[in-house]
Amino acid sequence: MNHTNGNCLYAHSGGVSAALNATAAGAIKAAQRSESIHDMLVPEYGLHGILNGEFYSTKDLDQAALDQMYCTPSSIFGTSRFKLPDPRVDQEPYIQILEVFKTYNIRSLLYHGGGDSQDTTNKFSQFFKMVDYPIQCIGLPKTIDNDLMVTDHCPGYGSTAKYIATSTLEAALDTKAMSRSSTKVFILEVMGRNAGWIAAASALARCDATSAPHLILVPERKKSADNILAGISLQLDKEGYCVIVVSEGFQLTDTISSDDSDTCSFGHKRLGGIGLELANLIQSSLKVKTRSANADYLQRAVGHCASAIDLDIAYHIGQRAVQCINDGLYDKMLIVKHLGYLPLKWKIETCPIDWVANHEKHLPDFFISDNGHDITPAFCEYALSLVQGEVKPMRKNSIPAYFSKHHLQKVQIEEHQL
Amino acid sequence: MNHTNGNCLYAHSGGVSAALNATAAGAIKAAQRSESIHDMLVPEYGLHGILNGEFYSTKDLDQAALDQMYCTPSSIFGTSRFKLPDPRVDQEPYIQILEVFKTYNIRSLLYHGGGDSQDTTNKFSQFFKMVDYPIQCIGLPKTIDNDLMVTDHCPGYGSTAKYIATSTLEAALDTKAMSRSSTKVFILEVMGRNAGWIAAASALARCDATSAPHLILVPERKKSADNILAGISLQLDKEGYCVIVVSEGFQLTDTISSDDSDTCSFGHKRLGGIGLELANLIQSSLKVKTRSANADYLQRAVGHCASAIDLDIAYHIGQRAVQCINDGLYDKMLIVKHLGYLPLKWKIETCPIDWVANHEKHLPDFFISDNGHDITPAFCEYALSLVQGEVKPMRKNSIPAYFSKHHLQKVQIEEHQL
Repeated sequence: MNHTNGNCLYAHSGGVSAALNATAAGAIKAAQRSESIHDMLVPEYGLHGILNGEFYSTKDLDQAALDQMYCTPSSIFGTSRFKLPDPRVDQEPYIQILEVFKTYNIRSLLYHGGGDSQDTTNKFSQFFKMVDYPIQCIGLPKTIDNDLMVTDHCPGYGSTAKYIATSTLEAALDTKAMSRSSTKVFILEVMGRNAGWIAAASALARCDATSAPHLILVPERKKSADNILAGISLQLDKEGYCVIVVSEGFQLTDTISSDDSDTCSFGHKRLGGIGLELANLIQSSLKVKTRSANADYLQRAVGHCASAIDLDIAYHIGQRAVQCINDGLYDKMLIVKHLGYLPLKWKIETCPIDWVANHEKHLPDFFISDNGHDITPAFCEYALSLVQGEVKPMRKNSIPAYFSKHHLQKVQIEEHQL
Repeated sequence: MNHTNGNCLYAHSGGVSAALNATAAGAIKAAQRSESIHDMLVPEYGLHGILNGEFYSTKDLDQAALDQMYCTPSSIFGTSRFKLPDPRVDQEPYIQILEVFKTYNIRSLLYHGGGDSQDTTNKFSQFFKMVDYPIQCIGLPKTIDNDLMVTDHCPGYGSTAKYIATSTLEAALDTKAMSRSSTKVFILEVMGRNAGWIAAASALARCDATSAPHLILVPERKKSADNILAGISLQLDKEGYCVIVVSEGFQLTDTISSDDSDTCSFGHKRLGGIGLELANLIQSSLKVKTRSANADYLQRAVGHCASAIDLDIAYHIGQRAVQCINDGLYDKMLIVKHLGYLPLKWKIETCPIDWVANHEKHLPDFFISDNGHDITPAFCEYALSLVQGEVKPMRKNSIPAYFSKHHLQKVQIEEHQL
């Protein structure tokens, strides 16, 4: 083959999900078939590996490895949260990166991340134009937060939505069964600093067996403590138990924010979140036993609870990104467009990167109920479409057997030097 | 059929698990086939329903219902945490219960719960003997805490062990992938006030893809903050990330216990646990980004992550309990004996109830490593034997479709009166 475009760099950036490696598998498979790509190089720990020229070669990975990669959550290669400076102000890291790119003959870049990460893709593109280094820059969407603009959803969100719905359902059955003589209120705190997409997905738990969740508290709607307590009392009167799902970024109008006096007995600053604050408030005010869980990192790399359609779309994002390289496109962001729900009809399109970079998409008003602590049937139709189907990871001794980067080959510089 | 023994009461008591309803399904199926039982009655909310004569009839449940019940976590019927007084001191509630038992012609009792609950079974038996009411009392084991004496494991523990191992593995992959530029230490707080069985199960997460968990902190071993911090520093130097699993009942030797000044800004008593305390300690002392999750009620009703062998044994416990009734046994507790590991060889035996009541089984010394923050290969062989096989719950729209008690029939008194 004549690999006209040298090597392609595919990098992870920002937080992980269950679908990140499915996209990697799709991109690697397509790169292995591409006539314009010699090797798809993946940096160790994202931007960290780019700065230091630490890459994995993927051209020799076989189908069995890619199949295992597809089902493995988190990022096999590692990712990063570095923020690059504006290349018009500070070019130092970019000059370092340029040398690495030249050394490794990198002629195309697939940058896979959320809103902040696509700002980085954009900066790369700007810098390489300034120094006349010809390179195709393509952005790939992901984030469990589902808060990217333009795309109708973000790969990774469907799996986290499925996990949150399942966990809410099971914790609700627990709370309900115990409610006569033990815990009456259960609170689940989930991720989402500025957007309530993850908390909203808990509504999919509602079924014959439970009416939970009874309050869904999202950053898009502040509420007073009194208003929340009234809602809980109403539900306790009705069914004797109450399940609340709250975004980490939800705020009370009568703020109980942490201040410097908010330290533990060792004198250290406390880390506790809104779920715990609400539990304290409810237990003290309503005198009912209240418990809270904080899902934290249990909710991102949810391979054992992944959504089949989520991983399928993620895989095709990877394949399409390589197609963009093959087609000679520059400075594009891949997005998913929805054409119908239940079942989901979808297609992958492209848009300019700067449409997506640095913006956040909040829950639109028509997805939030008038009372401000519930979501609408329209949201359920949307979210239910994204959680369809199960994925069975390989298992060893009945525990998931995920892909290990020990199986990957680090690139030797000599091979790739021009 | 000649139902010589009238009705059999089967009741849930104490906390829930993924395997509680599997035992119910086994007991109900056997009762339907038993010549000595007319109907297996199940109280709503355990002792609460017993005191108030609120029972579900199960004689007409068909196989499809029992199949769905088998896979449904928590307690379909509801459970309770009431503690009965010593019948030699206070007979009031017992007299109320006796009237209910006579009204409903209850001639055998299967009481399904942990150590405290078997104390209740024992009290029932004592009282009924005192008043010459002939009734067979049989105790059935369950508790995710795995802390019952005599039995080699408790049904429900295997599923929670599988959930904790899977969650630790996935959160570890998350932490590892982000560790170069974000969180370096992750803490998972799990249940276990006096025994570390659940935390210990996290060791099953270790595999090719991660060496986590790196510290397992259990109530059986107090440790100093300095000792823990040294262990974390060592692991950070080695691999750049550290995952800790801690039992809620773990204690530091240099205690950071809550006191009355430990309130939030609303003046309410704080509810935060040891995971959060450790996170505060680590972040302040080692200056590394630390996050913590509290699994709380996410770890009990883990139907989506249930262990096949756990539910299978639970089902057979139910069947065997009815066999005890058929065989005319009195005052027995069912226990599981292990005859071999990987694969597990097991049988169900009986012992006197008072061998089990009010005792707690801690992790034995040979399951805990010399350093006090890890477990031994012998424990892994034991626990791995209990997590084998997956259970697929029915699904509706790809979310688990669990059994709802709306499908159950409440008992009409007339039918069952003598």
